[in-house]
Amino acid sequence: MSTYVFGHTNPDSDSIVGAIALSYLKNKLGEDTIPTRQGIISPETQFILDKFNGTLPELKTSYAGEDVYILDFSDKAQAPEDIAEATIVGIIDHHKLGDLTTDTPLECWIRPVGCSNTIIKEMFDYHEVEIPKEIAGMMLCAILSDTVIFKSPTCTKMDTKICKQLAEIAGIEDYKGLGMEMFIVKSAVQDATPRELTTRDYKKFDMGSVKVGVGQLEVVDLSVFDNMKDDLFEDMKKLKEDDGLHSCALLLTDIMTEGSQMLVVSDDASKFEKAFDVKLEDNQAWLPGVLSRKKQIIPFLQPQF
Amino acid sequence: MSTYVFGHTNPDSDSIVGAIALSYLKNKLGEDTIPTRQGIISPETQFILDKFNGTLPELKTSYAGEDVYILDFSDKAQAPEDIAEATIVGIIDHHKLGDLTTDTPLECWIRPVGCSNTIIKEMFDYHEVEIPKEIAGMMLCAILSDTVIFKSPTCTKMDTKICKQLAEIAGIEDYKGLGMEMFIVKSAVQDATPRELTTRDYKKFDMGSVKVGVGQLEVVDLSVFDNMKDDLFEDMKKLKEDDGLHSCALLLTDIMTEGSQMLVVSDDASKFEKAFDVKLEDNQAWLPGVLSRKKQIIPFLQPQF
Repeated sequence: MSTYVFGHTNPDSDSIVGAIALSYLKNKLGEDTIPTRQGIISPETQFILDKFNGTLPELKTSYAGEDVYILDFSDKAQAPEDIAEATIVGIIDHHKLGDLTTDTPLECWIRPVGCSNTIIKEMFDYHEVEIPKEIAGMMLCAILSDTVIFKSPTCTKMDTKICKQLAEIAGIEDYKGLGMEMFIVKSAVQDATPRELTTRDYKKFDMGSVKVGVGQLEVVDLSVFDNMKDDLFEDMKKLKEDDGLHSCALLLTDIMTEGSQMLVVSDDASKFEKAFDVKLEDNQAWLPGVLSRKKQIIPFLQPQF
Repeated sequence: MSTYVFGHTNPDSDSIVGAIALSYLKNKLGEDTIPTRQGIISPETQFILDKFNGTLPELKTSYAGEDVYILDFSDKAQAPEDIAEATIVGIIDHHKLGDLTTDTPLECWIRPVGCSNTIIKEMFDYHEVEIPKEIAGMMLCAILSDTVIFKSPTCTKMDTKICKQLAEIAGIEDYKGLGMEMFIVKSAVQDATPRELTTRDYKKFDMGSVKVGVGQLEVVDLSVFDNMKDDLFEDMKKLKEDDGLHSCALLLTDIMTEGSQMLVVSDDASKFEKAFDVKLEDNQAWLPGVLSRKKQIIPFLQPQF
């Protein structure tokens, strides 16, 4: 029986590349694993796969009865609906510890670093398995994406060190340039529908007794959203209803000026004003210096609920 | 501010020695940590501390406002009561993933091996920190205890390999003999009160909507319990009431003949009969080959609730 390897719902590049890289490692170690994904991929991830001849993991949303390695999450909200009927044999993650539990002992590599692929590189080294050039290139991109080319406060020395090592394996000299190229692809939002944008990098969180959805779009220039905000707000209202949320927020993050325009649709928007000590105008506020949902948004929002 | 390092309630040798070893490692890495414990130690642990000049970690049961590394557990049932007000910065464990969650990213080293100290040895190696001779001796004993001198089905190749390495560092040739010496100390139950025995290695588990307590006593000859069973049953009834349990079980494990006499006090003892396909007589049954609560008891009991 094969073991499936996959990341969270609404997969980002870390989830997709991590599934490919971890599955490769586990297969080298004699296991029989298959990388999968829980949803459609972003243009950024497509860029990475195209650049390094990566194979798109198959779409699979049901895992009852299967053994699974999960990546880049440890909470039920981001898991397949039938995760309770699967056996989690391993977790690789760099977030806070979520509410998934297991019935049997397992392998967990969870570290407070900027990207799950940083931890997967550590696992390759631990097992003394060589990383193929193309997989190293993809892992490099995943880390550059998660750390916003080292600008995010989630970025650690370990992430930058491992990026250097991966760039060397991949034979890439200007890897910061590669990161910029990737973020320019990510900034091309014009062809996407509002729903594609609100959910492209979207996570649901249990806060108190309610659910809060927080999406994020990282671009090199916020002006791309100038004529889209009404459509985005319109869709956030629908998304709030569809997912039974108390609040839906969308961060439009400018990675060059380093800050985020926060859009809010909420049953009680004052919670956001208190959390970030701002006044919302037209349901929006500029949060200077905010690049990380994980480190600069969620920990401040959570105590309000 | 110091970070505290401690194992589960009713600490076993793995919890005590692990706190000492992990705290030593973290301090070598420049952190400021203090090993602590949540309860009284067993004669086995005292034997280990005496043998290797170990210092008994201080007793501490409240951790509100503190940073903590937790060891050998990941569930609320075995945590200090105010764990929700502490910040868990790391978890080292070899059990199933429990229901503790965190608000911030953390470091988890969880592996499906026989003992937490096996993982701590892996951490020493990862960080390239030398293990002092006496700490190596204590870690060796902790692994010999948890794996029942390699007889337990929880024992992995990693555990035996790491025991060899630790024995070499500690300068101990006959480490299986050391294990036997330790288990003979463990078998001296005559001077203990019934409550000391029922709770010496006792864990509470959430099963369905109820709590089940399962204790275990590992000895080299079951005859030591011959005149104690009535007293043990009497205390198990009280323990069941004190802890609000649906069921209280006690495993009297014979590590030489390799099996366990299971004593049961339950609101519905048929669940135990179904779980292990046995008929209870006088609220007892012999379970041949059963040495591991984690691997041979809990996974079979859990689905009954």
